[in-house]
Amino acid sequence: MDRLAHTIEVLEASAQRRLEELFEFLRIPSVSTLPERREDVRRAAWWLKDACERAGLAASVLETDGHPVVFAQRRGPEGAPTVLVYGHYDVQPAEPLDDWRSPPFEPVVRDGNIYARGASDDKGQALCWIQAAGAWTRAEGGLPVTLKVLMEGEEEIGSPNLERWIAEHRALLQADCVAVSDSDQAAPGLPALTYGLRGLVYLEVRVRGASRDLHSGAFGGGIMNPIQALCDILSRLKDPASGRVLVDGFYDRVRPLADWEREAFRALPHDDEKYRSELGAPMLYGEQGYTTIERTTARPTLDICGIFGGFQGPGAKTVLPSLAGAKVSMRLVPDQRADEIAEAFVRTVRRLAPKEVEVEVGPPERFGPAGKKDARPGGADPVILERDTPWARAAEAALERGFGAKPAFIRAGGSIPVVLTFKRVLGLDCVLMGYGLKDDAAHAPNEKLCLEDYHRGCRASAAFLVEVAARAGRRERAKTP
Amino acid sequence: MDRLAHTIEVLEASAQRRLEELFEFLRIPSVSTLPERREDVRRAAWWLKDACERAGLAASVLETDGHPVVFAQRRGPEGAPTVLVYGHYDVQPAEPLDDWRSPPFEPVVRDGNIYARGASDDKGQALCWIQAAGAWTRAEGGLPVTLKVLMEGEEEIGSPNLERWIAEHRALLQADCVAVSDSDQAAPGLPALTYGLRGLVYLEVRVRGASRDLHSGAFGGGIMNPIQALCDILSRLKDPASGRVLVDGFYDRVRPLADWEREAFRALPHDDEKYRSELGAPMLYGEQGYTTIERTTARPTLDICGIFGGFQGPGAKTVLPSLAGAKVSMRLVPDQRADEIAEAFVRTVRRLAPKEVEVEVGPPERFGPAGKKDARPGGADPVILERDTPWARAAEAALERGFGAKPAFIRAGGSIPVVLTFKRVLGLDCVLMGYGLKDDAAHAPNEKLCLEDYHRGCRASAAFLVEVAARAGRRERAKTP
Repeated sequence: MDRLAHTIEVLEASAQRRLEELFEFLRIPSVSTLPERREDVRRAAWWLKDACERAGLAASVLETDGHPVVFAQRRGPEGAPTVLVYGHYDVQPAEPLDDWRSPPFEPVVRDGNIYARGASDDKGQALCWIQAAGAWTRAEGGLPVTLKVLMEGEEEIGSPNLERWIAEHRALLQADCVAVSDSDQAAPGLPALTYGLRGLVYLEVRVRGASRDLHSGAFGGGIMNPIQALCDILSRLKDPASGRVLVDGFYDRVRPLADWEREAFRALPHDDEKYRSELGAPMLYGEQGYTTIERTTARPTLDICGIFGGFQGPGAKTVLPSLAGAKVSMRLVPDQRADEIAEAFVRTVRRLAPKEVEVEVGPPERFGPAGKKDARPGGADPVILERDTPWARAAEAALERGFGAKPAFIRAGGSIPVVLTFKRVLGLDCVLMGYGLKDDAAHAPNEKLCLEDYHRGCRASAAFLVEVAARAGRRERAKTP
Repeated sequence: MDRLAHTIEVLEASAQRRLEELFEFLRIPSVSTLPERREDVRRAAWWLKDACERAGLAASVLETDGHPVVFAQRRGPEGAPTVLVYGHYDVQPAEPLDDWRSPPFEPVVRDGNIYARGASDDKGQALCWIQAAGAWTRAEGGLPVTLKVLMEGEEEIGSPNLERWIAEHRALLQADCVAVSDSDQAAPGLPALTYGLRGLVYLEVRVRGASRDLHSGAFGGGIMNPIQALCDILSRLKDPASGRVLVDGFYDRVRPLADWEREAFRALPHDDEKYRSELGAPMLYGEQGYTTIERTTARPTLDICGIFGGFQGPGAKTVLPSLAGAKVSMRLVPDQRADEIAEAFVRTVRRLAPKEVEVEVGPPERFGPAGKKDARPGGADPVILERDTPWARAAEAALERGFGAKPAFIRAGGSIPVVLTFKRVLGLDCVLMGYGLKDDAAHAPNEKLCLEDYHRGCRASAAFLVEVAARAGRRERAKTP
């Protein structure tokens, strides 16, 4: 008899309760980057601990130098493999608030989607695993594997304390593989196993002219305008015609795409015109010679995430501002290295900086209220995961169980830096089972998660546990002479 | 006996009261560009009406389609000339508030300066004229000329309703000349008669990419980033090497500086290194081939006054924003025309706009909360005033009386568009008697007016009234056969 059947029944019978739990979770504005949300972040951690306990896991909130980590576990049968699940309970800021159709921290279901900040990234996806564990325990009195759950509260600020925490808790975190649900399906109804992630370098540039704001009439023309200088610098970081990034040596280590991979990208369901129309952009644009899927998942890029300076209110103010700044993210692909690219960016900006202004460049922490002047530029390296491991095979089967379709193997444009940490510090492979969709508006107003994908995700997570157990069993048996 | 002596005595005896009155005026946050300050702007108008009445003028607050106009007058002796005084009681926004050493609307005297938003621009300078009239009336029981006072509340938003109001009140405003104190001395202790003003065109550029903010990981590389597009456009509006503006045809009508004028500029007290060090800029910068005084008063220029887009908070948010915008001011010199330059700017930005984004350009009102979609680009033409009129000679003598030094003839970098309106609509010449200093930080944090300059300004204003009367008398006598 199918070992999963009872668990699926329990999941189905508890659909309403599972939705209400997710709503509770989403109502907590755990925005990790905002100092004023510190207590809300803690509240989310404690909520998650309780949820793990309701699911039959032993759970605790463990302190770090920043926001806490939630750790939970439940032992499986003797000799069963151990699955470590990673997720994050912190969310991006909700700004600009005016653009939300319903308030970001008051979740609602509309047109079959759950709308709230964090619905897709990552509370909704992370909670699937807790729900799956709870259903297993209620249906079968226990889990088919030993399950460990590690949920952090600093993913959206670059996980500054996680690597050390993991290194200090090696024994606690011992496992056979890591499962992460913080990515997307290939398309609606087409689940995906993500085997590639782009890396990330995020830096801020600040330009200062005069020591105070000046009247643009009285002083305009006499000194360099820092906004103008900033625009000149930023404009020289990307070639508009080719779409190529002009940071010194940016492409030196980029591994060319293999023919088989470009073939596989072409086989994915994608329509440029539909994509463009959903985004509402006048035209698509990107690096010449590559398709949209390649540009957004398998080629490196540079984006200005924010810019500021001078008068921004309605109307006119004739000011020659003293300060301008911009935040820049670079997405990296194998074999680029985050530290090298960060250094190259700093070097390039310094080379482009006119001497008539002061130009500073570094990680955003350096310019924040805490003013960590010694914060060093860095980021996350890109990742390519092996596709032929028992865990990847288990994930493939589980996704098919959960979503009713064979998964595609895809690369994702975003970064999940902890994937590298697990490999480097614990020697563990991750499987990336994404339950979101590309148009979920993660990091943007009106973030959503398809309600049905939440249920499918719970099923796929539940299935993964038993598929891992089955494969480990086969491996054990195969070893027996 | 000197006709001015009693009036000066009265001014000196009332120094403390006159300072307290200015403080009252400065405490009213009459920021004309902010809708939430509407009532404060009205309050400033009514305060000013009362002040005029205390000075012996008949005064009224007169409505326009925007903020009201304050008009006041007092008849002089039969046959005496009529002086119209223009000023404005509205002020610039005080932001960024954090940079003020004392709150912008809580005036204080520190190191011999009055610190407050509007101290120099223009409440302090405008009030000098009311104080002068009050002193005359108390000292002599009346004025040596007929005085009319016109103070508007929309100067800092481009005086959208003033021209029509002036045209509709031609008879009321009939006069022989206009006196305006809304500019600077040549240097501390060196008063100035300003004979040239730069024109102004102020436009906003908005760039839209996708219809919502996107995750820079999932979508970065697939569509054009509107901040990048905006920077590319702005960067192509000025040549960094030559400092020249690249708006199409920008210099076509610029009148080359005459040798005598460049000579006169060189004779003005100015030290580049002192100027740079006071501004706190690493180096001076401007159009190649011109001095700082020429660059800031007699050559046209372009400045980005504000820029915005994406995430601006502390920390990092990996967003590919949907919108970016910038506010740009251009300062014009004879014989550039504001309407032509505005059109040229719009045309140039459209030419530079990539087709992968939507680019809109127009006056800031078009993008404000009221969304005046039909607002047309425009601005103020530059001005050169005649130096050899009885009113200019009277101003020269009055400034020497008030400041104890012969005034310099200078050009100013800012714009006083109403100067053109008075000429065009009423056929009147203005005299520009500036009581401020270049480093008064008009439009910037820590705006100030030198306390002694307030007193000198009151004296110079009082002297102007009698100097005009004397010259008109001489003219009348000269006409008698």
